[in-house]
Amino acid sequence: MHDWDLLLTDARLATMCAGGERYGTIEGGAVAIANGALAWVGPAESVPKKRIKETRSLAGRWVTPALIDCHTHLVFAGDRAKEFEARLSGTSYEAIAAAGGGIRSTVRATRDATLDGLVAQSAIRFQALRAEGVGTIEIKSGYGLDRDTESRMLAAAGALGERYGGTVFRTFLGAHTVPDEYQGRASDYVSFLVNEALPHAHGLGLVDAVDAYCEGIAFSPEELRPLFECAASLGLPVKLHADQLSDGGGAAFAATIGALSADHLEYTCDAGVRALAAAGTAAVLLPGAFLTLRETQLPPVEALRTHRVPIALASDCNPGTSPIASLRAAMHLATALFRLTPEECLAGVTREAARALGLGDRGTLAVGKRADLAVWDIDHPAELTYWLGTNPLSELYLFGRPASG
Amino acid sequence: MHDWDLLLTDARLATMCAGGERYGTIEGGAVAIANGALAWVGPAESVPKKRIKETRSLAGRWVTPALIDCHTHLVFAGDRAKEFEARLSGTSYEAIAAAGGGIRSTVRATRDATLDGLVAQSAIRFQALRAEGVGTIEIKSGYGLDRDTESRMLAAAGALGERYGGTVFRTFLGAHTVPDEYQGRASDYVSFLVNEALPHAHGLGLVDAVDAYCEGIAFSPEELRPLFECAASLGLPVKLHADQLSDGGGAAFAATIGALSADHLEYTCDAGVRALAAAGTAAVLLPGAFLTLRETQLPPVEALRTHRVPIALASDCNPGTSPIASLRAAMHLATALFRLTPEECLAGVTREAARALGLGDRGTLAVGKRADLAVWDIDHPAELTYWLGTNPLSELYLFGRPASG
Repeated sequence: MHDWDLLLTDARLATMCAGGERYGTIEGGAVAIANGALAWVGPAESVPKKRIKETRSLAGRWVTPALIDCHTHLVFAGDRAKEFEARLSGTSYEAIAAAGGGIRSTVRATRDATLDGLVAQSAIRFQALRAEGVGTIEIKSGYGLDRDTESRMLAAAGALGERYGGTVFRTFLGAHTVPDEYQGRASDYVSFLVNEALPHAHGLGLVDAVDAYCEGIAFSPEELRPLFECAASLGLPVKLHADQLSDGGGAAFAATIGALSADHLEYTCDAGVRALAAAGTAAVLLPGAFLTLRETQLPPVEALRTHRVPIALASDCNPGTSPIASLRAAMHLATALFRLTPEECLAGVTREAARALGLGDRGTLAVGKRADLAVWDIDHPAELTYWLGTNPLSELYLFGRPASG
Repeated sequence: MHDWDLLLTDARLATMCAGGERYGTIEGGAVAIANGALAWVGPAESVPKKRIKETRSLAGRWVTPALIDCHTHLVFAGDRAKEFEARLSGTSYEAIAAAGGGIRSTVRATRDATLDGLVAQSAIRFQALRAEGVGTIEIKSGYGLDRDTESRMLAAAGALGERYGGTVFRTFLGAHTVPDEYQGRASDYVSFLVNEALPHAHGLGLVDAVDAYCEGIAFSPEELRPLFECAASLGLPVKLHADQLSDGGGAAFAATIGALSADHLEYTCDAGVRALAAAGTAAVLLPGAFLTLRETQLPPVEALRTHRVPIALASDCNPGTSPIASLRAAMHLATALFRLTPEECLAGVTREAARALGLGDRGTLAVGKRADLAVWDIDHPAELTYWLGTNPLSELYLFGRPASG
């Protein structure tokens, strides 16, 4: 009988454990895995004597926690490339919307798609993230806006994880926008979500969290309150798209409802940041949407640092405002656009992304955590943020086992 | 005996031939290849009767010219990730330069590297471009700044093409910056390039063009004139880094010397644009450097359009100001940052990139051109610009043959 299934030696570890060395670095390190979890982490010369099934040298490669993309909308059907082209050729958002474009066109196509169709159309995005070392992917609903399509999106999200590996965290985002059928009746639509769509999806075991888009063009805090009361009654954690286009008090509202995370935050004021800090709510920054929308209002990074709000980072992969199926691109953009440091970026897609999903079992290389590891052909962890376009992933381990490409 | 080696049918063609349909589109098209060149291009129903060695259906996939990255510095040694990190952690450019960082550190590492070492260290960047459908890659010297290292860089560039496939276009950029040995003596350094370094590299058959960095912090037009006279005497075409950080009359100078292209151009004035137009010099836009430097001065895109200056687009892949080994990322960034249309972006990495390199034999799907083709799993050519992170490349043909990954 073995004590450990696998010992990885001659590794350089970016444990991402807070409070010590930059990146929680252990040079000349080793990691032991047993039953899919980390059984031992430390300097190779201190490895205790154990019965070990397999030992592998990583020849000095770096090991980080597997990456976590904590905010995506990557399951959808249809194609908005032509609309993207029309916008760049001078057609206004209003004209595109009037012609049935924008999120409406994605809702139509997604409603029309079967479960298999959704999985097939979304696979290229899921696989792109997986191929760059992402082991946990949050995927939201929100292009169905009816009972069955919202559930089907979440089922497709789960199916992607089963087919291609990795954990999928499914977030119910019925309150993404007010659908045509409910125009001018946002509260009625929230009632429908509370009474039908969310309980239905939850009853099918498809919901890990509840999110909503709190914004002038979508839902106000008052309109959303019943939804989050419903989530609480179902025992579901909550998240919030907050203050992306204006300061609508979204961050403070996220804090009030005890959200795991408040996402976007470009227009969040200092009081909002302090509320997040007091509530222990993580900030999720989304530079892809910032770039695509040509936003100029920067999220309050310095205030988030000052008040020690955990900063996570995500791709926001979606067909309208962030057509970016790359978490490493989001890291690169976060340095260029938001001036996050490479260490903040890597923490933002490991330790803090885990926190933004309420997943206490991953995100750092610490004993007891899941053995979700990425092995990299790099000389320094800053390279993961510095370079765009190269993929130095050597191997991805999920639950202690090499993941297939 | 066969007339054609290969006929690709059931294809959607973005021929990128100017003047007709958007993207030069032919739906339901076919492409015939003979002796590595395009022997016939048109609607599948009009294919003439020929003896054909092999016919393949592309099942409705899109075909474009293989992409061309017409401006890179991808051959270099060393690593600037830590410096990247230091800058984002608040260390000033000046402090980094004083500590021997910046381009100096790349020059040191590159001078210390062997030919094999340069090839090995640069392969990840070359392969990243190849993997996304780039068939022709321009690579500049400019981190040697001495006779032998400049030649060794160009030899490494050529070796990458031989090892991994694709055409490498080698550009002598000895006048990248004034090396330490010549501080304050820019004209003496140019004399050294004219009398030693350039003739040496040219004598070894390593030079396809000559480029220089015309900028306040580098060389003035007056200082560069002898270099370009030397290039002319050797029969070498010329290019120029112009007006990136200030309007130094670079575009007008590029026009004066009959340059194939003037590159960067953020600060080019209207007179400069008119000079480019009159000279038939292409503009090469480099959004990666714009992003990395957090530049706010946009290149004069509207003026370039008005005066019908050909607009090419490139990655500028380099360790200091554009750590981006992805031409598709450059396309995506060019829409977000410069508002180029997806068609302009695709033309910028095919037809216009070929023009920026003076390569009349490629860049469109027209009879007689080289059979360098990219086959894509997409529904619309705008997707190539729209999505960042996914790679829908199905196949790359070089000289009419499938290229190995």
